[in-house]
Order: sequence, then C-alpha cells, then structure tokens
Amino acid sequence: MEINDKIQNILSACDHTLLSTTATWADIREICNDGMKYGTASVCIPPAFVARAREYVGKKLKICTVIGFPNGYQTTEVKVFETQNAIANGADEIDMVINVGELKARNFSYLIDEISQIKKACGDKILKVIIETCLLTDTEKMEMCRVVTLAGADFIKTSTGFSTGGATFDDVKLMRDSCDPAVKVKAAGGISSLEDAQKFLDLGADRLGTSRVVKIVKNEKGSGY
Amino acid sequence: MEINDKIQNILSACDHTLLSTTATWADIREICNDGMKYGTASVCIPPAFVARAREYVGKKLKICTVIGFPNGYQTTEVKVFETQNAIANGADEIDMVINVGELKARNFSYLIDEISQIKKACGDKILKVIIETCLLTDTEKMEMCRVVTLAGADFIKTSTGFSTGGATFDDVKLMRDSCDPAVKVKAAGGISSLEDAQKFLDLGADRLGTSRVVKIVKNEKGSGY
Amino acid sequence: MEINDKIQNILSACDHTLLSTTATWADIREICNDGMKYGTASVCIPPAFVARAREYVGKKLKICTVIGFPNGYQTTEVKVFETQNAIANGADEIDMVINVGELKARNFSYLIDEISQIKKACGDKILKVIIETCLLTDTEKMEMCRVVTLAGADFIKTSTGFSTGGATFDDVKLMRDSCDPAVKVKAAGGISSLEDAQKFLDLGADRLGTSRVVKIVKNEKGSGY
Amino acid sequence: MEINDKIQNILSACDHTLLSTTATWADIREICNDGMKYGTASVCIPPAFVARAREYVGKKLKICTVIGFPNGYQTTEVKVFETQNAIANGADEIDMVINVGELKARNFSYLIDEISQIKKACGDKILKVIIETCLLTDTEKMEMCRVVTLAGADFIKTSTGFSTGGATFDDVKLMRDSCDPAVKVKAAGGISSLEDAQKFLDLGADRLGTSRVVKIVKNEKGSGY
Repeated sequence: MEINDKIQNILSACDHTLLSTTATWADIREICNDGMKYGTASVCIPPAFVARAREYVGKKLKICTVIGFPNGYQTTEVKVFETQNAIANGADEIDMVINVGELKARNFSYLIDEISQIKKACGDKILKVIIETCLLTDTEKMEMCRVVTLAGADFIKTSTGFSTGGATFDDVKLMRDSCDPAVKVKAAGGISSLEDAQKFLDLGADRLGTSRVVKIVKNEKGSGY
Repeated sequence: MEINDKIQNILSACDHTLLSTTATWADIREICNDGMKYGTASVCIPPAFVARAREYVGKKLKICTVIGFPNGYQTTEVKVFETQNAIANGADEIDMVINVGELKARNFSYLIDEISQIKKACGDKILKVIIETCLLTDTEKMEMCRVVTLAGADFIKTSTGFSTGGATFDDVKLMRDSCDPAVKVKAAGGISSLEDAQKFLDLGADRLGTSRVVKIVKNEKGSGY
Repeated sequence: MEINDKIQNILSACDHTLLSTTATWADIREICNDGMKYGTASVCIPPAFVARAREYVGKKLKICTVIGFPNGYQTTEVKVFETQNAIANGADEIDMVINVGELKARNFSYLIDEISQIKKACGDKILKVIIETCLLTDTEKMEMCRVVTLAGADFIKTSTGFSTGGATFDDVKLMRDSCDPAVKVKAAGGISSLEDAQKFLDLGADRLGTSRVVKIVKNEKGSGY
Repeated sequence: MEINDKIQNILSACDHTLLSTTATWADIREICNDGMKYGTASVCIPPAFVARAREYVGKKLKICTVIGFPNGYQTTEVKVFETQNAIANGADEIDMVINVGELKARNFSYLIDEISQIKKACGDKILKVIIETCLLTDTEKMEMCRVVTLAGADFIKTSTGFSTGGATFDDVKLMRDSCDPAVKVKAAGGISSLEDAQKFLDLGADRLGTSRVVKIVKNEKGSGY
C-alpha cells in the first residue's frame, strides 16, 4: 500500500516484533529488513539473536529485546545479568517483565528494587516495563504505574503477547493517566489493524509492539485508510 | 484417597510443579508442603522462589527449577548464569529449555555447546533438557535425543506446559527408544490421571512433571485405581 | 582373474586408494587407469593430485581426496579451506579426519560444528568422516555415530590407514547399528582379500577404501572365489 | 635432575613437541607449562591448539606448529592458507612438510615455489622445512638442501616423526654441510637421550624436535651426565 504521512507516523512508533519460540535467524533477518525498509522505531527480537542482528543492521535500526520474558519469575540477579548481556550484545532497548507473583503479594519494594537495578544496568538505554495487564486488577495496574514511575523506567508496557490477553484501549488510557508524564506507554499484544494502531496512539501510547502493522503495509492492496 | 504402593510409586516419580506466572510464595509454600507430605521426587518452581523454598524445606525435599523458561531463546551466557544462580540458591535439579530456533536451523553444535555448558554449571546436580515436543517434527525429536545424549544431560523432557501441547505416549516412547539408556525421560504437560501417569512410567518415563497427580491423591474420595 | 558379478559388485564399492607420501603423478595416473578399467566407485588420492587427475580422467571416474589427513588436528578454518580447494580442483568426494583430541575431550559441539562446516563447503559433493576407530573406545565410536548423523555427513569411515589399525568387522557392525540409516559406512584400512571385502559389505559397509582389491583382481591367476 | 649449564643449553635448543593425534588441550597445556618451566626454545603443537596455547602462555614462550603435516601432499594454496591461519592464531614458528612426491618426480620448481610462498606467508616468523629424510636418497637430501637455501627458509628439518625413521647423525652432518650457513638445521624424531641431543648439537644442529629431553630432565634421579 502507499505509505502516506499518517501511516509512516504509525510505522515510526512500532517496535516491529518477532518473539516466536521457533523463529530462526532467517526469520529475524527478514524482520530486520522490514524494520529498516519501513522505518520502524525498532525491531523487538529474542535475546539470543541480538548480537547477530546488531552486526546485520549496523546503525540503521534500533534493536529491542526482552528480559525475564515472558513469565518474569527469574531472580533479580539473573534479570540484571541478562540485561547487561543484551546491552553488551548491542541492544538499544530492553523490555523486561515484572515478577507478577511479587505484585500479587504486594511486595512493592521488591518490584521497585528489581526495576531500578535493571534500569541501572541499562545505563542510557531505554527500559520498558511489561506489567502483563491481563493478569492484573485495575488497582494492581495503577500500583504498577507508581512503581514504574518511582523506579525511573522509561516506558510502561501492557503485555508480553504470551499470556491470556493483549493491549486494550482502557488499559492504555489508565496507564497514560496514572503514570508520570515522563513515563511513556507502550501498547503491545493483539494490535491488528491500522485503525487500532492509530487509536492506541491517540489514547497516549508512544510505542506499539506488533508485527501486524508492517504486514498490513506490505501486503494490503486496497485503498482504504 | 488411600495411598497404596502403586500410587506411592507414581508420587515418587513426580516433580510436583507450579510454574504459573501469578504464583505467590504462599502458593509455592503449599506446593512444598504437599511435596514433603506425599514424598514426591521434587517440587518444580520458578527460580525466584528457590532460595525461599530451600530455606523452608531444608533437606526434606528436592527442589527443581526452570532455566530459559519457557521460550528458550535467551543467550547461552544468560542460561549458564541463571543455572549458577539457581544452584547457588539451593536448586537440586535444573530443567532447561533448548533454543528451538537453533534446532529449526539445524545448528546442532550450538545446542550441544549450550547444554554442555549448562551441564557443567550444574556440577553434580541433575540437568533435564526440555525439547518442547509439540513444536518439533519426529526427525527433530530424534535429533534432540542424539544431542542430549552427546551433551551429557541426565534427562530429556517433553514439554514446558506453556506451548501448544504436552507429553504424549508416542513421544515418550520415541524418546526412550532414541536416547542412550543412560539418559532418563521426563514426561510433562497435561498429565491428568493416575492411569495416564502409570502408562507414561510403563513406556519408560522416569519422571513426571505435573501438579495434577498430587491433587488427585489429595482430593479424590473414591476407591478406584 | 575373471570378473564375475560378485567381484564386480565389490569393485564397484571400492574407493581405489593411493595415499602414500612418496606417490608421484605417474603412480596416481596408474591408479586412475585402474579405477577406470575396473569400474571402481572412485579413486582416493592426495589433494595435490586432484586437479591433474580430474583433467586426466574427465568424467569417466569419480575422484575422492582426503582433508585434514591423517592426523585431523588442523584448525576448522583450514579444513574448510582445504575442502573448498579440493572441490574447486575437481574432487567429487571428500574424506575428512575428525579432530580426535577434541573427541577425547568430549567436545562434541566442536566436532559437529567442524563437520557441518565442511559438509556445507561440500555442497552436493559426498562427505565421509574418518573417525580413526583404532584410537577410540566403543563409547567414543558410538558418540561419533551420533555426531556424524547430526552433522549431516554422507558417510562414516573407519580409518586413515596411517594409525595403529584399520577396519574391523566389529567396528563396521557397530557403526551400521549406531548411525542413522541415511548415513552410509566406509570400511578402510587393511582390507586384504576378496572374502574380507565381501564380509564388510555383508555387514553393512557401502564403500571400501583399499587398493588391494584391484591388485588382487589384476594379478591373481587362480580360480577360487 | 639438577639442571647445569650444559643441560640448560640443550633445553634452550629444544622445540618441546607433542603432535600425537589424540592429544587434548590438557596434554598441550602441560607441554606449555614444561616449556615455560624449563626454558625450551618453543613448544611444537598441532595447529588446532595454537590459539589456545598463545592465550595461555602469553609472551612467555614461543609457539611452533606444523603445516601440511605429516604427509605433505596438500595443495600449495592450502599450505599457504594454513600458514596464514597459524600465524593469525599466534604461531611464532612454522614447520612445513615438503611434497615428497614432487621431489621424487624431480619437480624442483614446484618445491621452491611452494616453500617460497609459505615463507612469504610467514613474514618475519621462522620457517622450517621438513624433508622427511627417511624417505629420501642422499642425492635427494642434498637437492633439498639447495631447494631450501634457494627458497629462503630459515631451517631445514629432518623428520616428522610419523614416517619410518627419525634424525640420524649422518643426515644432520650432510644437511649442515650442504646447506648455506644461513640455513639452520633442526634434528627431529627419535632423539632419546641427553648424550644424543648433545651430539646432534655438536654436529651442527641448532634445534632439536623432541619431548624426550624435558621428560628426562623432569624424571631422572640419577647423577650421570
């Protein structure tokens, strides 16, 4: 399809994502090619591919990867090490998963300490905190907005895409309202049309985690949008 | 239900498992209590709970945890560090997930190297290698039997329970036939009755990953079995 | 001697071999002449003679050569380069020697990686992997059957003829039993009679590395066999 | 045994050598340790171990390796590549084997061209040319003294240790007499006592290829020598 300003604006907000367990380097390379071609914010890929992707794309594309993904119940030491390793391999952005069990136990200091340590490990790289909204109550979501703000992370993010649900408009709105303005919002999981992508942006999302937007742009022949 | 020799035999083969993302320490503690009460082979729990569980159960129960779980696409360095960390925290058994993408790319040296490094990090602790059978062809399953044998792991294991399917009778039979006799087999995922549990053992499985067996034994009032 | 079907069948399985350090082009040319005359599977000759032999025999005879021969402890880069060079010079089949020291150190990923890289360099040419059985334990032989299967080589081969022993019936049987059926077996070293040649074939060998069979056929006057 | 000046002088002339097909890194490391401890001229080890040995010994010990070893019938391109690879991995000295078949065919230009190309690949590193005396006539040995002189190699060397014989006093004397004084002589293969080692040096050898001298010095309790 023809890429007008509006579509390019959406593409520029996308972390073009492939986190399938069975993805090979050939698959990841294609994601990188598309990310470069369509000017996405980044590609979001498994940690084991970061070094190869960095070598492949050079400075032409940001690389995002995932830490403690998708279940989040690794020890803090392991998540910090995994972050350091990802950055050493060339990652620009880190999407970590919180320890949901500790949130359920209302162990906020654990959550802040863990996020803070990972943020420190990130240095000047971007940290996004995945709270897996589909598993949380609205109260827990708001608590996490505070935790993420206090811990100094750059983004709060809705979902891993590996649990029972993805981003919803309500959740993105809640997160935008409850976080400090300095904390950006990433909607991820199940974004399936350009219309939805635009709506998430309109509701205050700064980034979108999806592979669907690029696929639509690549394949759609229709007029529309 | 009354625990006769046959049922105790099944219980003794179970890694009593709770790997839910939302599990709290209270949930894990109950799993530990049940593991001790019913004489399971171990409890299998998230890495972030290993230190607490070790302190709680002392030497009365083996603790198993999961590495690179469930997607397996962390870097080898991270998996090795996570293993060292788990063992330092008191884990007796390590259930790691292979990098499925590298298997799909037929990168066998990568797989053997990774498993071997983790086995080395395990020292005298038990290493089980999860191959996530539901994502593999029969040829890939047989290739992994060779890889696991060569890498010197203690067990090959069918499934994480977080993908599209769990243990099947056919897969357990294939694994028992294709691995060296020194490599044991763990069936995990979806084991839902004592009859099935016994059949997996009859087919050559040495361990069962399940929480269902203990639940059946705890709750069932009927005679049966 | 008269060449009946049974003898021709043996000849057709022979890699007619001359790998003496002192062999000259005149010696190699004679080997080529005999290979063409007696319909052997190939001639197996030193790499430095491959280009000349290719020019000499045209398309009338397959040419096999040896890589990392006979000690096997060159770097992988060198073995790969040597393979590429041999194929560029016209080789149809590549008989490589494993790094025995890395096998003794149980470094299976090294072995698979090296064989895989050489197989890749072979493209559609045949790769045979010499494991030098006389230096190995039975366990190591079986481990190499798994390694060779995983690495995707076409043949496993017993011996270089430059170490302490050649092919044995037991080893050929073990290799046939322990390798995937898709991997063929070459017995080489010390095959000294038509009876032994036939027995190796009966035990599952697909190729024989020997110069003796052709010599017997050329010289023997007796009836026999 | 006590190491007096005379013994240290012998040790300083030794390329402490381990070229067994089955040698592991643990074996090579011990050779390196002994080389450093006893102040040998170098250690002579298989190419696949050069990089590890270089990292292990740093600048404390020279590392020598072998090219086209031991049969010498690789193509010139492969020998040149193998030399470049060895030097890139940290080798200080290169012991190459000539193409004996080409010598037998009196193809001197081939021999000089090959040695010259390898010398060029060596840059300022030392090149020793192994002529495998046990396979040569005295005439051929003298011809090789000329070839080696013309090709600009640093050393001529008697033997690989993998053929039918090693260094003899007569051969060392012949080589010393027939080569240009700028070409040094290395005696290798079968040197089995300090007395013999000394005699080779007295006859004009500058280097000795042996592991036996260090073993004698390490183990001998007796007075003698």
